[in-house]
Amino acid sequence: MIKVAVNGYGTIGKRVASAILAQPDMTLVGVSKTSPNYEAYQAQKMGINLYVTKESLKEFEEAGIKVKGVLEDMIKEADVVVDATPNGVGAQYKQVYSSMGKRALFQGGEKANVADVSFSALCNYDEAVDKRYVRVVSCNTTGLLRTLCTLNRVSKIAKVRGTIVRRAADPKEVKKGPINSLVPDPASIPSHHAKDVNTVLKDLDIVTMAVVAPTTLMHVHLLDVTVSSPVTKEDVLSVLSSTPRILLASGKSKVSSTAEIVEVARDMGRPRNDLYELVVFEDSVSVRGNEVFLMYAVHQESIVVPENVDAIRAVSGFADGRKSIEMTNASMGIGKGYLV
Amino acid sequence: MIKVAVNGYGTIGKRVASAILAQPDMTLVGVSKTSPNYEAYQAQKMGINLYVTKESLKEFEEAGIKVKGVLEDMIKEADVVVDATPNGVGAQYKQVYSSMGKRALFQGGEKANVADVSFSALCNYDEAVDKRYVRVVSCNTTGLLRTLCTLNRVSKIAKVRGTIVRRAADPKEVKKGPINSLVPDPASIPSHHAKDVNTVLKDLDIVTMAVVAPTTLMHVHLLDVTVSSPVTKEDVLSVLSSTPRILLASGKSKVSSTAEIVEVARDMGRPRNDLYELVVFEDSVSVRGNEVFLMYAVHQESIVVPENVDAIRAVSGFADGRKSIEMTNASMGIGKGYLV
Repeated sequence: MIKVAVNGYGTIGKRVASAILAQPDMTLVGVSKTSPNYEAYQAQKMGINLYVTKESLKEFEEAGIKVKGVLEDMIKEADVVVDATPNGVGAQYKQVYSSMGKRALFQGGEKANVADVSFSALCNYDEAVDKRYVRVVSCNTTGLLRTLCTLNRVSKIAKVRGTIVRRAADPKEVKKGPINSLVPDPASIPSHHAKDVNTVLKDLDIVTMAVVAPTTLMHVHLLDVTVSSPVTKEDVLSVLSSTPRILLASGKSKVSSTAEIVEVARDMGRPRNDLYELVVFEDSVSVRGNEVFLMYAVHQESIVVPENVDAIRAVSGFADGRKSIEMTNASMGIGKGYLV
Repeated sequence: MIKVAVNGYGTIGKRVASAILAQPDMTLVGVSKTSPNYEAYQAQKMGINLYVTKESLKEFEEAGIKVKGVLEDMIKEADVVVDATPNGVGAQYKQVYSSMGKRALFQGGEKANVADVSFSALCNYDEAVDKRYVRVVSCNTTGLLRTLCTLNRVSKIAKVRGTIVRRAADPKEVKKGPINSLVPDPASIPSHHAKDVNTVLKDLDIVTMAVVAPTTLMHVHLLDVTVSSPVTKEDVLSVLSSTPRILLASGKSKVSSTAEIVEVARDMGRPRNDLYELVVFEDSVSVRGNEVFLMYAVHQESIVVPENVDAIRAVSGFADGRKSIEMTNASMGIGKGYLV
């Protein structure tokens, strides 16, 4: 059993903790939390061991939340620490993980050089095997890499040009905007997503542009992928529909927006209406000579969760990436084929 | 003096009417309205002649709005009718304009075959001279054509790939959505915008993809334009900054979103905070080999208004497009260079 600690219990941390509880080969040592908010109460209700920093002990005590110990106690018990602290904070914790001799995963908000390798399960599981520090790329980069490494199986990709329409905030984030504006973010081109894809697919010719829109549900990517030899629409749909962690939203099913995709996830009984899968709008898949066009939606809160689970196995020396992906998918009910 | 009647007094019609009142060579015969709403009251207050259909006479009378006559009376008085009725309704009115021997403009919501030529002032003014029926392309297509015909002066365009992030509704439209969703619209690729650009630039290799976002202010386009010979960023900025009807939003000025662009329009005292100009995010302009990338914002309510004014002159036989554009710009305070 791989003993896993989750440092940070926010959007990503709480989902990774739930996923670890569902794995047959992992145990959850506990999670750490800095503030005694509703998520901390919820963790306590679920019987998850809560660890806090020394400085927060009193605050949690006053809030009536029972803590198991301090952060260092949790890390000591773990084989692997999943760092799910806010952007940039992970790099500061690296010293702690390192001094305690622990393997650690970082999230995509950290710079690539925080880790030995940036990770996307379908692209480069093998590279992460037995590494000490692995960075699971961000939600948008995970979406891009999952798509590109899948399309690459149809025909080698020569060039990618893409637009990312970013969700403005997660559903729980009440202090972020915009409410009624489109915000190029960044205004400069390329956006950092292209560079981040290059941390995994090092020589790929990719340019991305990004704009933030006032929505909380999902990101949408619109891609123009030039491949090295002509392909058909059927070739593309065939590989997309047979690859786990990718779902197709058919026009026939009248799922034509991110809101309807999330409604399906709710109807499916998905925890927190999470969609670990990329959802491709089937009608958008088109081919023009060597160019493949497609649009898909990325659930920013959950798409990286199965990636974290696989990365835990990789750093723990589990060498069979295909098998890890299968185990993760089976335990979390992650599908392939059609959304409905 | 060119006598102009405006059929339809909604988002576009009321703006075209205001623009006509500002032209030294045009008079406004009047406008027609189907329902006695706040826009009709406002027109009455401004002293604009209101015409209605026979069926609406009673309704307007009951609302206390004085009408000058019926629709046919207005058309009879005019040299040119600007049709600003809802999408698809213009085609039904064509028979009326034709039977009364009038020249007419249609808007971009009509099919291209409603008119002899589709129109964008910077691209093909000459083609519209003396034509009986001209279609002013939609706001998004106007934005695309204005950009492309300007970039074409730097280096001949070989290929265009673009994403259009569409505003969901105009500020006054309270029954439209989405409120919190991204909607591929259409989900199929290419979107109709590419086809519409081809009504003016007939042989251009262009593919567009479109997604609707929950915002009311402006559209945003993200373009990847392949040109036939290498250019520099300075070449591109030079032509963009010296072309009227295009403004640059500089990073220095901290205008980094559509909301801030509209705020500048309000501060400038623009009527209805209209921005007849395309607004290019200066920091987005970048060049990579033969590819030019850029992002710009399109004010959907007003960008076509100066185009309508020029098209009125063209169908009236005014042959000098450059001069018409200058007259329109001067009368409406339309600028070039930097937004601030």
